[in-house]
Formats: sequence, structure tokens, C-alpha cells
Amino acid sequence: MKIRKFHHMKMDYFENRRSCRNFTNTSISDETLYDIVRKAMRAPTCGNMQLYSVIVTKDSENLSALANFHFNQPASTTAPVILTICADFNRFTRWCEINNADAGFDNFHSFITALTDAVIFAQQIVTVAEMEGYGSCYLGTVNYNAKEISEFLQLPDLVVPVAALSIGVAQNEGEKVERLEPEAVLHFEKYRKDGDDKIIELHKIKDEFEPNKAFVKENRKENIAQVISEIRYPRSMNEKVSESFLKLLKEKKFFN
Amino acid sequence: MKIRKFHHMKMDYFENRRSCRNFTNTSISDETLYDIVRKAMRAPTCGNMQLYSVIVTKDSENLSALANFHFNQPASTTAPVILTICADFNRFTRWCEINNADAGFDNFHSFITALTDAVIFAQQIVTVAEMEGYGSCYLGTVNYNAKEISEFLQLPDLVVPVAALSIGVAQNEGEKVERLEPEAVLHFEKYRKDGDDKIIELHKIKDEFEPNKAFVKENRKENIAQVISEIRYPRSMNEKVSESFLKLLKEKKFFN
Repeated sequence: MKIRKFHHMKMDYFENRRSCRNFTNTSISDETLYDIVRKAMRAPTCGNMQLYSVIVTKDSENLSALANFHFNQPASTTAPVILTICADFNRFTRWCEINNADAGFDNFHSFITALTDAVIFAQQIVTVAEMEGYGSCYLGTVNYNAKEISEFLQLPDLVVPVAALSIGVAQNEGEKVERLEPEAVLHFEKYRKDGDDKIIELHKIKDEFEPNKAFVKENRKENIAQVISEIRYPRSMNEKVSESFLKLLKEKKFFN
Repeated sequence: MKIRKFHHMKMDYFENRRSCRNFTNTSISDETLYDIVRKAMRAPTCGNMQLYSVIVTKDSENLSALANFHFNQPASTTAPVILTICADFNRFTRWCEINNADAGFDNFHSFITALTDAVIFAQQIVTVAEMEGYGSCYLGTVNYNAKEISEFLQLPDLVVPVAALSIGVAQNEGEKVERLEPEAVLHFEKYRKDGDDKIIELHKIKDEFEPNKAFVKENRKENIAQVISEIRYPRSMNEKVSESFLKLLKEKKFFN
């Protein structure tokens, strides 16, 4: 299969990367997925425990069901493959038990360790796949219906979905969105507390980005900060997801 | 400055990457750090909120103090630069407040969101830096003394350290360690529950890896599973860190 290389893939990849939210209907072979995963598995991992698993969804009925848990956002409905990456202490714990080793991983710290491992692995999949010419997009909604996704994918104890990736052949180049300048996130020796004027200056790029101006108008808000914090990620939703996700962690035995 | 390219950097990078635990005393210029961070900031981020910050430690006294929080592991004591990457909802929240926007990010879900953003960003720093010829290593101990590190770096509310990276010019090629085969972590359509025989087979590579055999002997244990779960990551320590890390999250207002 021939992959079309877009502008941003030919230039310095890191400078120009962007997410892909529209895919062609070309699927990805299992062989290619194995190869991408094999390479991503060389990413750093805590104590070489590789505390992650990835569930590949390619079946069209399963894809529809999964997209539904992701609120049918375009990046989920057009993707030929969705990867659900899980923090997984199940396999390692079972291996310890078989070896008559005390496996004390049913706690919050171990969840954070596995989550970190899983996100490093997910990001390595993104980089490997994109540098080979595929497009990808995180489905940031994975926590919202984490319990439903867990049931659908038949996840056992000590396995929790923490990242979801749509992956496939990009339909178009995708939009390059605005980013803050390095100084906004870079601190030397101690955390620098910026004053309000500085905070405003650092975020001016967000206020002035044309698509953001359109969102402000469309949502009848005063500024893009209000659109993001009140419409896209409102307090009530964040608090509801906090509750359901903590409940899932307890059910999956990460709070014993 | 000339960077020596080791074997694994010249061949396919992803296939051969390894962590670097010994650095030369060559430092990294602020200009180079800006450039690496700028590229890593193009990594995916939730809703383009960029919920991370990175504190650069280069000062030799600060490096010693920080290495101490990381139990003076070699990867921390020889590094010319340590990057502490934080889940950061402080800057974004302050920007919302200035814009008269309700910022409801003082909750567990928002912490998980920022943690995910921060780990994606950290891993992109690793890939960018290593592909440019530097060596790096995660200091997995960042959660153990997270409160002490937070105080030392003067982190404000809604900022919590979640990854630490040693970075510099590699002293030597570093060891290529064993990894599981893709089938250990790859599941198709549903999570596959492996039987004990399969679990043993998948992990045989760990039992047979020569350095692991040496660890077993050195620690007077029966197998490498016992070394990892009882000596390196014992239950009592995992539970202690769970408690202190949860306490820190509450102090930093991620559980309001």
C-alpha cells in the first residue's frame, strides 16, 4: 500500500506534526500493527515491567460501538483502527503469583506507574506510526466512559483504559493549531510564578488564532478561555468523570 | 559540540533505543533545551491546553539536591541536566480566572488529564533529544519524594511532578535489555485472558536474560519475578508511596 506523504511529514516531523481527524477507508494490516507495537515496546518502561496492553479494534461493528463511547467524534467514526491502551498490572501480577512472588500492585501508586508506562507506550506508537506515514489522533474521551469501554473490551482486574488512538491513512493534511512559546512552560531551577500581565501575553496566541475567534462567536462567549473551560471542559463534567473514574479504579482493585 | 553517535542511534532508532545511565560532563546549552522543548510542545495535548511545565535543573548544587531525592541512582548523579516534568493546571487556571471564565480543574479527572499531557510531552522530549544524539533516562523515583521535590522546586497549587528525565551526552552505548514479544501486550477486539502456561512462556525471555539471572543469585531469590516484586518494588513501599502521593494531590488542590 502506498502512503501519501503530506507536507508536514516531509519536513522536520517534530516541528510540524499535527493530529489527523479524517481517515481514508484503507485499513492497517495486522503485520503492520505488530511492527509498530514491537518498535513502540522499546520505549522506556518502569523497571522493564511493560505495564500496558493494547486492544486493537478493527471489526466494523466493534468500531461503531467504541466510537459511540467516544461521543462519535469524527476522529473516532472514520478511523479504520482504534487502539485502546490500558494501564495493565494484571499480566505482571499473574506472572509474579505463578512465581510465588508477593505482588503488591493493587494500590494507587502502582496505577500511576502503569498509567505512566501506558502513556509513554501510546506516544511511542503515535511517533512510530506517524513517522512511517500514518495519521493518528488521541481520543481524549477515554476516561469519560472508561467503565463502559472496560466492559466492552472485557478488561479484567488491574487493567484500566487510559489512552485511545485512532490510526489510519490520513484523508488530508490536518490543521496546524497554535501552541504556546517554550517560555510558557520552561522554568529554570525553580518554578517561576508569572504575573497576570505575563500570563495574558503568553496566551495572546490563543486569543488571536482565527479558528478560536470563530469558536468564541459561535458559542456567544467573551473569549476562548470561557469556551474551553465552560463549554468544552465544564466543572460539572470534570467532577462527574472524577467520580466515575475513581470508582472504576476501585472496582479494578487499584485501591486495595 | 560534537555528539558521538552510537550504534543504536545510527540504525533504526526505535528498534534499538536504550536508556542512558552514564553521562559525560558536557552540559546542554539553554538554546538546545529551548529547541528540544519547542519541538516536543508540538506533541498531542488535551484540547490544546498544554497542561505541563518543565523545570530545568543545571546548577550543580541543585543537581546534587535533586539527585538525593532520586536516591542518588547513577542516572541522576552523572547527568548535567535533570528535567522535572509536571502536570500543571495552574497556568491554565490562572489564565481562565483572568478571563472571567469558570475553571473547574481542581479535581482528580483534571489531574489525570494533566498527567497524561505531561507524560506525552516528556516522552516527546526523550524522542526528540535522543534522535538528535543525546542520551536520556527517566528517573522512575519521581513519585517517591514528590512532596520534597515539589517544595524544592517551589511548585504552586495544581502543579505536581510526574516525570523526571536525566539528559546529556551519553558516556557509553548503554545496555539493550530484554523486552516481551508484541503478542504479550497485543489483544484483538477483546482482552485475551492467557492461562498460566502462556504467561510463563511469554515471560521466559525475562527468566533467561543473563543479567536477570545474576540479580536472582545476588538477591538470594528463586526467580526474577521475586527480585522485581519483593526487592525492587515491594508492597510496603508501593503502599507508602500511594499514601504520600495521594496526600500531595490533595495538598495541591487536585481533590477539591
